[in-house]
Amino acid sequence: MSRLEKAIVSMVEVFEEYATKDDKNRQLSGTELAELMKKELASPEFHGKVEPAVLQEAMTNLDKNHDGEINFREFSMFLATLARGYYRARNKGKGNKGKPDKPE
Amino acid sequence: MSRLEKAIVSMVEVFEEYATKDDKNRQLSGTELAELMKKELASPEFHGKVEPAVLQEAMTNLDKNHDGEINFREFSMFLATLARGYYRARNKGKGNKGKPDKPE
Repeated sequence: MSRLEKAIVSMVEVFEEYATKDDKNRQLSGTELAELMKKELASPEFHGKVEPAVLQEAMTNLDKNHDGEINFREFSMFLATLARGYYRARNKGKGNKGKPDKPE
Repeated sequence: MSRLEKAIVSMVEVFEEYATKDDKNRQLSGTELAELMKKELASPEFHGKVEPAVLQEAMTNLDKNHDGEINFREFSMFLATLARGYYRARNKGKGNKGKPDKPE
């Protein structure tokens, strides 16, 4: 598999690993999510790139249907938001080589 | 960094690598996307898991603003759709240990 395919598989595997700790295997409970965040999204290197406001935005949008549980759709959107924050931080100030920068 | 953080970084790095081949560095052109798909999303192992209909859905939704270019927001949503397809294929038929399966 390519690195991009491996990245997608990692997203799925991490979700499955934490979601199956209680008896609802297809959702992350609040506790499972907190544990995932602590173990999987806590490195200073990563946090140095993702602004707190981005993490806050991602967390706020996380439980779209407000049932206190996070299914894989919500989790995948959460990761997409974090990825955008990471991308923006890495590309701050880099325009399009003289062309107007397309809004994100 | 954790495997999840590395997965997010890979998503960003792959986009940057292909988007910077022409002079619009913050978007993927059709050609750049086609090359990315051919090199990064083509393994039989991955395609064996992601149903063609999922890939079609992801491609259809890819250029949300129909400008013929893909920015990172659109790309991150595209990957989230592929990840959901991969997750569904892996968890087909696996309920929640006796509980009604929450719709995706």
